[in-house]
Amino acid sequence: MKQLSRRSFLQQVGVGAGVAGASLVLPSFVTGQSQKYFGKKLNVALCGLGNYASILAEGLEVSQYCRLAGIVSGHADKAATWQKRYNIPDKNIYNYENFETIADNKDIDLVYIVLPNGLHKEFTIKAARAGKHVITEKPMATSVKDCKEMIDACKKAGVQLAVGYRLHFEPTHQELKRLGQEKVFGQVRFIEAALGYETYDAAKANIGYRKGDPDDWRLSKQLAGGGPLMDLGIYCVQSCRYVLGQEPIAVTAQIIPTRSPKLFSEVEESIIWQLEFGNGVVGNCTTSYGFNVDRFFATADGGQFELSPGLSYGPFKGKTTTGILDFPVINQQAAQLDAIGKLILENKPLPSHITGEEGLKDINIIESIYKAAETKQKVLIPAL
Amino acid sequence: MKQLSRRSFLQQVGVGAGVAGASLVLPSFVTGQSQKYFGKKLNVALCGLGNYASILAEGLEVSQYCRLAGIVSGHADKAATWQKRYNIPDKNIYNYENFETIADNKDIDLVYIVLPNGLHKEFTIKAARAGKHVITEKPMATSVKDCKEMIDACKKAGVQLAVGYRLHFEPTHQELKRLGQEKVFGQVRFIEAALGYETYDAAKANIGYRKGDPDDWRLSKQLAGGGPLMDLGIYCVQSCRYVLGQEPIAVTAQIIPTRSPKLFSEVEESIIWQLEFGNGVVGNCTTSYGFNVDRFFATADGGQFELSPGLSYGPFKGKTTTGILDFPVINQQAAQLDAIGKLILENKPLPSHITGEEGLKDINIIESIYKAAETKQKVLIPAL
Repeated sequence: MKQLSRRSFLQQVGVGAGVAGASLVLPSFVTGQSQKYFGKKLNVALCGLGNYASILAEGLEVSQYCRLAGIVSGHADKAATWQKRYNIPDKNIYNYENFETIADNKDIDLVYIVLPNGLHKEFTIKAARAGKHVITEKPMATSVKDCKEMIDACKKAGVQLAVGYRLHFEPTHQELKRLGQEKVFGQVRFIEAALGYETYDAAKANIGYRKGDPDDWRLSKQLAGGGPLMDLGIYCVQSCRYVLGQEPIAVTAQIIPTRSPKLFSEVEESIIWQLEFGNGVVGNCTTSYGFNVDRFFATADGGQFELSPGLSYGPFKGKTTTGILDFPVINQQAAQLDAIGKLILENKPLPSHITGEEGLKDINIIESIYKAAETKQKVLIPAL
Repeated sequence: MKQLSRRSFLQQVGVGAGVAGASLVLPSFVTGQSQKYFGKKLNVALCGLGNYASILAEGLEVSQYCRLAGIVSGHADKAATWQKRYNIPDKNIYNYENFETIADNKDIDLVYIVLPNGLHKEFTIKAARAGKHVITEKPMATSVKDCKEMIDACKKAGVQLAVGYRLHFEPTHQELKRLGQEKVFGQVRFIEAALGYETYDAAKANIGYRKGDPDDWRLSKQLAGGGPLMDLGIYCVQSCRYVLGQEPIAVTAQIIPTRSPKLFSEVEESIIWQLEFGNGVVGNCTTSYGFNVDRFFATADGGQFELSPGLSYGPFKGKTTTGILDFPVINQQAAQLDAIGKLILENKPLPSHITGEEGLKDINIIESIYKAAETKQKVLIPAL
C-alpha cells in the first residue's frame, strides 16, 4: 500500500508550503470554504464512553465525513443515555462481551477505541478481526510489543489503523511543523515542550485527595501503562519529532519524587526528560499530574517560535521572531475525523504520521524514557 | 572566625520566619524605615569599569554603609570620566599596573572586582595582599582551583571575601528561600530555573553579528571561563541550592548546538542541565545567550511558587498556591553593599552564603555541569 509523504499529504489537505511570514493556506475543513460534502459518511462506533468520548462525539456531530453510528460500553445505563442523545439504533449498541459480533454489522465502518490505554491492544485487534478500520486514542498502547501486534492484526485484516493524534490536524501545529521542517528560521537547535495538569488538590495532597475520581484508571500501571508521560508527555515527544522531522537517538530522564505516594504508588506523578537528536539538537520535556504547565518553545538558527498554551486543547497563542501565530480555533476532533474519514471513504492510505507505525515510534521512545529514568543513565533509543 | 548561620543572618537583617501567607518583615535597608546611618562608610574601589560597574556605582550612590572612593581601570579616558562624575581624588585612581600600590592607601577599605571572570583570581589575590577586603563579582572564578587560591589568600591576609550574589539581599528571593527551606508548602520536589538573553541579532546569526560588542569578553573561554552557564546559569544553580537548602549530588547536562559557530567557537551558546539532589529532588535549569528566558518555578508537597521574571534584575513578579509575591522593588546592589558594608564596618564575619566558600561551591557544580555535557554522562559532583 503506497504511503503518502508528509508533503504530499499537506498538499492534499490544502496546506501550502509558504515562506516566513506568508499566511498558511488552511484545509477546507478548517475554513469551511469548500463545497459541502453530501456523499456517504463513514460510520463510526465509539468504544468506551468516558470523558474524551464525549469530546469526540461533539466532533462527530460537526464532521462532514464521519458520523456517530454506534457505541460500545460496559455500562448499560451510560449506553442508554448516549443512545437517546445521539439517536443510535439498538443494533449498533455493543458491550465488551458481545463486541466481536460487530463483524456482522455492515453499518459500522470504523471503531474508535477510547478505552484506558491498557485495553487499546485487545480492542484494536478485535475490531480489526471484525473487519473494521480502527482509530485508537493515544498513547497507541502500553508497550512496543503491543503496538506491533496491533499493526500486524490490522495489516492481516486489511483494515486501516490510525492513532488519535489530534494536533496533526490543528492549523497552529501544522504551522509549527512547517516552521521546523522547512527551516523557515533555519535549523531548530533546541525545543522545550511541557504539558501538565494539577490533577489533585495540592493543599490536601498529603492525604491523597484527588479531584474528581479517586479510582482514576490513569493512576493504574496496568490500565494506563504509566503516568502523565503516557497521557500528556506523549504530546511533548510528538511535537519535538514533528517540528524537527527527525527521530531522537538517546534520552536522559528524571522522575520527580511524588508529593503523594498514596496516589502515585504505581505511576509517576511528574517526569522530565531530554531527547537528543542526531545533530545534537535537544528537546527538553516536562510532564506532570501535579502542576499546570502548557507550552512549546523552539529556537532556530535565525529565530524562535513558541506557543503558550501550547499542547493542550488550546486555544493556542503564539509568536515567532517575525510575528504572531494566530490561527482560527477549530474543532480539533472534527478536523482529525474528517481528514481520516475522507481518506478511508476514498479508499486511500492514511498518511504515515498518524498510523500505527507512528504510534509505535512514540511508545518506543517512551519505553526508553522510562528506562532512562529507572536506570538513571542515558539510554540509546533502540531501532524499530 | 565565627560564621553566622543562615537563620541568624536572616534574623540579623530583619527577615522574620513567618508562616504561609504571613507578610515578610523586610530589612531596614529595603523599607527605609530605620534611622539614617551617619557613621563611617566603607570606602569601596571598583576594579574594572564595565557595564556592571556603572550599575554598582548607582548602588553605591544610595548606599548607607558604602561609598565609591576609588576606581581601577586600564583606560585612562574612562577613568577620567568616572573621576569627574563621582568626584574621586587623584590618589584613589589606579590602573592595572600600579594596582598593588593600593596597599599604601588607607582611604580604600574594600575592592570590588568587576573584571572579566578570568581575571577575578589575580585581582582578588592582589587586593587581599594589599590588605583590602574583597567582593568579587560572580562567578567567583573560572575554576575550583582558582577559587581555593582566592580563599586561601584572603584568609592569609586576614581580609573578608564576598561574592557578588545580589539576589541574597533581594526580598522576593529571600522569600523564595524561606518558602523552600522552611517548607512552607512542604518539601520542594522539583525546580525549574531559567535565565537567558538573546544577545545577538537572530536574523543575522549566520553571519556572526552580535549586538553591541563583537569582541565581548564573554565569548572568550580564557576571560569568561565558559558561556552563559558562568554568567547567567549560575543564578539557576544558586536559586536551586538556596531554595532547597541542600547541595546537588549529581548532574546531567546537554549543550545546545550553537546557531553561530563563528561567535560561539570557545564557549557554549546555550546549555541545559538537571541537578539531582539527595532525596531525588530535581532542578531543571536552562541558560542561553541565544534566547530570552527568565523564570523560576518550584513545586512542593502542598503547593507551588513561581516567579516570572525570576532571576534577572527584575522587577520580580510571582505567585504561590495561596497568593501573590509582591515585594518592593529595591536597588539590589545597594542592598547587597549595605549588608556587606555594615558587617565589615562592625568587624563581623560575613554570612557563609555569600563568602568565597559559597562561590567555590557553585564553581564546583559548574565544573561538573560542563563535564556532564562534554562526556554526555551523568557526573557525580565531587565533595569539596
